[in-house]
Amino acid sequence: MRGAVLYGPRDVRFEERDTPTIIKPADAIIRVSATCVCGSDLWPYRGVNPIPQPTPMGHEYCGIVEEVGSDVTSVKPGQFVIGSFFASDNTCPHCHAGYQSSCQHREFIGTAQAPVLRVPLADGTLVATPDVPSNDLVPSLLTLSDVMGTGWFAADAANVKPGSTVAVVGDGAVGLLGVLSAKHMGAERVIAMSRHESRQKLAREFGATDIVTERGDEGVERIKELTNGVGADSVLECVGTQESMMQAIHATRPGGAVGYVGVPHGVALDGGKLFYGHVHLHGGPAPVRRFLPQLLDLVWSGKINPGKVFDLILPLDQVAEGYRAMDERRAIKTLLRP
Amino acid sequence: MRGAVLYGPRDVRFEERDTPTIIKPADAIIRVSATCVCGSDLWPYRGVNPIPQPTPMGHEYCGIVEEVGSDVTSVKPGQFVIGSFFASDNTCPHCHAGYQSSCQHREFIGTAQAPVLRVPLADGTLVATPDVPSNDLVPSLLTLSDVMGTGWFAADAANVKPGSTVAVVGDGAVGLLGVLSAKHMGAERVIAMSRHESRQKLAREFGATDIVTERGDEGVERIKELTNGVGADSVLECVGTQESMMQAIHATRPGGAVGYVGVPHGVALDGGKLFYGHVHLHGGPAPVRRFLPQLLDLVWSGKINPGKVFDLILPLDQVAEGYRAMDERRAIKTLLRP
Repeated sequence: MRGAVLYGPRDVRFEERDTPTIIKPADAIIRVSATCVCGSDLWPYRGVNPIPQPTPMGHEYCGIVEEVGSDVTSVKPGQFVIGSFFASDNTCPHCHAGYQSSCQHREFIGTAQAPVLRVPLADGTLVATPDVPSNDLVPSLLTLSDVMGTGWFAADAANVKPGSTVAVVGDGAVGLLGVLSAKHMGAERVIAMSRHESRQKLAREFGATDIVTERGDEGVERIKELTNGVGADSVLECVGTQESMMQAIHATRPGGAVGYVGVPHGVALDGGKLFYGHVHLHGGPAPVRRFLPQLLDLVWSGKINPGKVFDLILPLDQVAEGYRAMDERRAIKTLLRP
Repeated sequence: MRGAVLYGPRDVRFEERDTPTIIKPADAIIRVSATCVCGSDLWPYRGVNPIPQPTPMGHEYCGIVEEVGSDVTSVKPGQFVIGSFFASDNTCPHCHAGYQSSCQHREFIGTAQAPVLRVPLADGTLVATPDVPSNDLVPSLLTLSDVMGTGWFAADAANVKPGSTVAVVGDGAVGLLGVLSAKHMGAERVIAMSRHESRQKLAREFGATDIVTERGDEGVERIKELTNGVGADSVLECVGTQESMMQAIHATRPGGAVGYVGVPHGVALDGGKLFYGHVHLHGGPAPVRRFLPQLLDLVWSGKINPGKVFDLILPLDQVAEGYRAMDERRAIKTLLRP
């Protein structure tokens, strides 16, 4: 088969890779219906993360089970399944606590930009849809593998409640789905921080009530102005830089909460500032497996349509263009069809 | 009157200061029954915080109201009162959210090691006891001004619940009262980290079920061993150094919570480590005013006896020895009687 391989900064190739097979009894092999490019894929793509050797890419996926190992009991060939970017056994203490992305036996799934994928710990990782979905549902189902679950976790970690005032830092796909999540959780006011018109439009469609175009200290000032000097109850940090993290912390009212899901790059938090900021801080790699059944219901019943974040759909062999378009911010998120 | 003044590192003097009077209509003047030395007073005492000029000291107090300003309605002369180390109006949005120590009009009370004290925003700050207490109750009532409320906030911020496994980093008075708080909130297991026999003894008396004497990475390993490799549900950070903070974060299970109340000195948190640690982080200057009515009930009814942390009681004129004894760790906490 042919799949995506990153060779170096801005050098993604579509080339021959071994077709995966069952290695362990808990594995499943999936024929991938759709995969995509993640904002976090841009870190190595831009050379911020080193690429010591040619590296297969991709960690978001959904598709049809082709084969399962001898231990697998919860999914079977022919079913359409979605799984998290971290495989998890879903039985260890961390999984039981709802933190499957810290599973004691977790394995990162990093080869999903390909037509066939091996998923370890299939029983704990994969969730089957009620039926094989129609094509138009596939983009939204695909988002449950990471980006929608991550936006949802950001809102959950930021303690969004009915009536909350929420601010969202970052207008990438995760931030936009953070807006959708906050709205769905009953937030009264959702302030999206964005200076890109197409993203502002989608943010409004997802439920944003206000748009703030300023960044950094000015952005914080605008949030304060919009909240009578108090700050937001909940702030979703969906970028991962020092600036975005401080913007999130400073925009939160004392006693409020920051949910952070942007993979941190060069972020260092000053203990004293954090102490006097009085905010709750929670985040990390989203345990999307926790939210998968609930979010699957919402997508299946048409209550949410997170697949709208895909504004570029390409055949998998054009994966390089998919990365380029996101890198140049011509696309919010690229869906790839094998 | 004469009160405590810090001149420089390890130079506390008991000397003439102006007797405070009503300045604003919201003030109250208190005849101090008891005050004490805080662990946080040791930062400037040790020269870690600069002392640009001779500085009156003390922020923990209880006593009898002598006089009130014209706006004060909730307390009156003759009543025994306790207040937080931050004066707060208790009406602003931050106070309403339970974060009185971030009150929009807060004023730090820093002159309490004296026989007479001016308390601003008296209506929002002071809570009167049901009656003038007997002398033996005064030490426990005094702790509600800071140290008990701070230990309680650490446990509250660390989300301690019935059945929780809790670890406490720091065996000063705040840490010990964190043990008491966790126990009172229903923790099943309370692991105190201490290598001092007298403090271990008090920790056990307050409800500690386990003692860990190791620190740093070894201390974390011991907590992991005691929790089947999982980590504690809640960790109370009651010191404020880089080592203690990292010890707390690493000893917490994914999804667990760190409540931090040690005033940070030179603490910098690595965003990446925090991200993959998956912990909840909350803390800051304790909003002890939030907890005062509840804790007053517990002390008044004899359900808790936090005053046991005072293992040295001195007349106020020996305040210098009170600091020395704590600095040299001969005393856990010094109570001063004007």
